Formats: sequence, structure tokens, C-alpha cells
Amino acid sequence: MPLALDPAAQDLLFREARTANAFTDEPVPEDLIEAVYDLVKYGPTSMNQQPLRIVLVRSVEARTRLVPHLSEGNRKKTAGAPLVAILAADNEFHEELPSQFPHLPGARNLFAERAIREESARLNALLQVGYFIIGVRAAGLAAGPMTGFDAGGVEKEFFADGDHSVLVVVNIGKPGENAWFARSPRLAYDQVVSTV
Amino acid sequence: MPLALDPAAQDLLFREARTANAFTDEPVPEDLIEAVYDLVKYGPTSMNQQPLRIVLVRSVEARTRLVPHLSEGNRKKTAGAPLVAILAADNEFHEELPSQFPHLPGARNLFAERAIREESARLNALLQVGYFIIGVRAAGLAAGPMTGFDAGGVEKEFFADGDHSVLVVVNIGKPGENAWFARSPRLAYDQVVSTV
Repeated sequence: MPLALDPAAQDLLFREARTANAFTDEPVPEDLIEAVYDLVKYGPTSMNQQPLRIVLVRSVEARTRLVPHLSEGNRKKTAGAPLVAILAADNEFHEELPSQFPHLPGARNLFAERAIREESARLNALLQVGYFIIGVRAAGLAAGPMTGFDAGGVEKEFFADGDHSVLVVVNIGKPGENAWFARSPRLAYDQVVSTV
Repeated sequence: MPLALDPAAQDLLFREARTANAFTDEPVPEDLIEAVYDLVKYGPTSMNQQPLRIVLVRSVEARTRLVPHLSEGNRKKTAGAPLVAILAADNEFHEELPSQFPHLPGARNLFAERAIREESARLNALLQVGYFIIGVRAAGLAAGPMTGFDAGGVEKEFFADGDHSVLVVVNIGKPGENAWFARSPRLAYDQVVSTV
């Protein structure tokens, strides 16, 4: 059964898009990341929480601080990417709710407990990480998302306030030579979806 | 700066797509959900873990078992949606790694500890929830994702094996009358993204 989304867009975002492990030197302009954000910011979050925060690692100095916290197999990929984004959840997102969810004036107070808002921040920021990866592909770029790193170490280096949880680090750029492995299989519909 | 994705697709997936709270009676065919899955299954997960599992709630009997576990404000929306999907993480996803990530034969053993694989299942399944919401929109349908429910109650009703964590419940269909509130604001680029 055909989808409403045209097949070329399906290919760009999902079918032909691949996780890149090697990149060309072509720089990724800040304006393009801003265009990605201005699209994916519309992805839904619970009560419009929008807890995702993004640190773009551009300077050589910042790259040098990041790489040692990655697992060994990821260091070379990140060292060679033109742009690296650290994606984190802001555990103080509730401070924005009075402006971001104005039709429920008491929304901020539902998250008075830190443990409750940490859980909600993680859940909703991870949905936003999914939207962001799609957005990078929408820009015609390849994303190389990674979860192999010492989150505590990255938090200490890049979020000194203690109020952020680092979730995923994404290498971003144009795919280089031998950028990916052969496509791995996917679970069949019947292995994933059941009807009751 | 323009994205590679054409503007109509941007509108369909993000800019004009809205979280629906009311739906028409028009049924959602199983084939269409299969087409959604066959697209979004290509979204990336760490080591191709693919922990997302989906239960489509179609029968009146199953709907009756689900609704009482939702927070009060969500019950009417779900009762009136033509299709409801329970999205969960499979905490035993590692059993599929020998077939799904064949180029690292020891991958399964990295997840021998339940706590480690629960954390990884949650993280990666939430990325897949993000892809699934985009996929529902790609089908020309509206999604109404909800996190307000008693997860333990839903797990007991729908995942008796004790091996799944329910993450998000999504109402799916064509938007009905007064399907949504006015669009809430979004955080500005400078509030979310910084460069180092």
C-alpha cells in the first residue's frame, strides 16, 4: 500500500540513507544545521517539553576534549568527521514550560521532582534525537550516530552545570570512501508487530 | 539554507503535521501500517538492535483492556481513535543479534546483563518511536503520541512475559473535527544549539 510521502523522499530519509563511518572534508555550514533544527523542532514531545540540547563540536580544541571519552572503535570516525553534534537532555527543561506550554499554566510544577523530570527529559529528548537524525538526512548529509562513549566524562567536559544527560553523539558530513558496511538485515514485520 | 528534502515532504512530516486528539471513523488498514514499518525499519539503532515492538490494538475487547490504564485526559482520545499502537522495548532483543548483526559474532554476549540491555533497549526503541511517528505521518495519517499512562499496568495486560517496557502509546487515524490545539511555540535555535 503506497505512502503519501513520495518515493524519492522515502529513499533520502530511510531506504538509501546509511550510517556513515567515514566522511569527506567538505565543511557543514552552520546555516544548514539551523535549517535542520528549524524543521525538526516541530516533532512532537510530551507537553511540548523539547528537552533536546545540541552542542556542535567544531574547534580543534573541543574535538580534542571529546575524542578521549569515546569508545576506541568510535574515535577515528569522530576525528575524521567535519562536524560532530553532542545530543543531550536538559534536565531543567521544565523552566521553559510557562512559555512553551502556556495552555496549562501549572505544567512546570508537575516536574518539581528531579527524578521525574530526568526520566521525562530522557524519553522526550530521545524522540527528538530520532527526529534530528532524520533531519540531518533531509539536509542531504549523512549521520553517524554513536552510543559508545563515557557519558559522565562527556557531561563533565561539555555540560559543567550538572543538569544535562548526554544521550547520543552524531558524526555529520558527506560520506567518504568506504563510508559504510553492507546493509545489515532488518526484522520482519511479523517479528515486530502483532495485532490484538 | 535549503534542505535536500522537498518542501512538500517537509510540510507533511514536520511543518504541517500535528498531534491529533480527535479522529474520523475511517479505518486504518493493516497494509498501510506494514508499509510504514517497511520504511521506518531502516532507521538506525546501535548495533542494529531494533528493540522496538508494536502491538496494534484493534478489537473492542483489547481497547477495553487498554483504556483504564491511561491517564484520564487521554482516555477519550484513545477510545475514539480507529487504531492504537502500543510501542514497547523488547528487553530480550539481544537474542536477535546473531542474525541481525552478523559481522560481530560476539554481539549477543555484550548484553548478558539484564540491566545493561534494558537501558540499551529503552534508548534505541525510543529512537525508533521517533522514526515510527514520522512514518505514520509519511502515510498521510495523524499520530497522537501519549506518555500519560500506567506503564506497569499496560505491560501486565499486553506483555505477560515480563520482558517488555512500554514507552509510548500512539493514537492513529485521520484527524477529526477540532483535532488539535493552536500550535505551541518552539524554542529558538540559540536556546537549543551552541557551538564550541
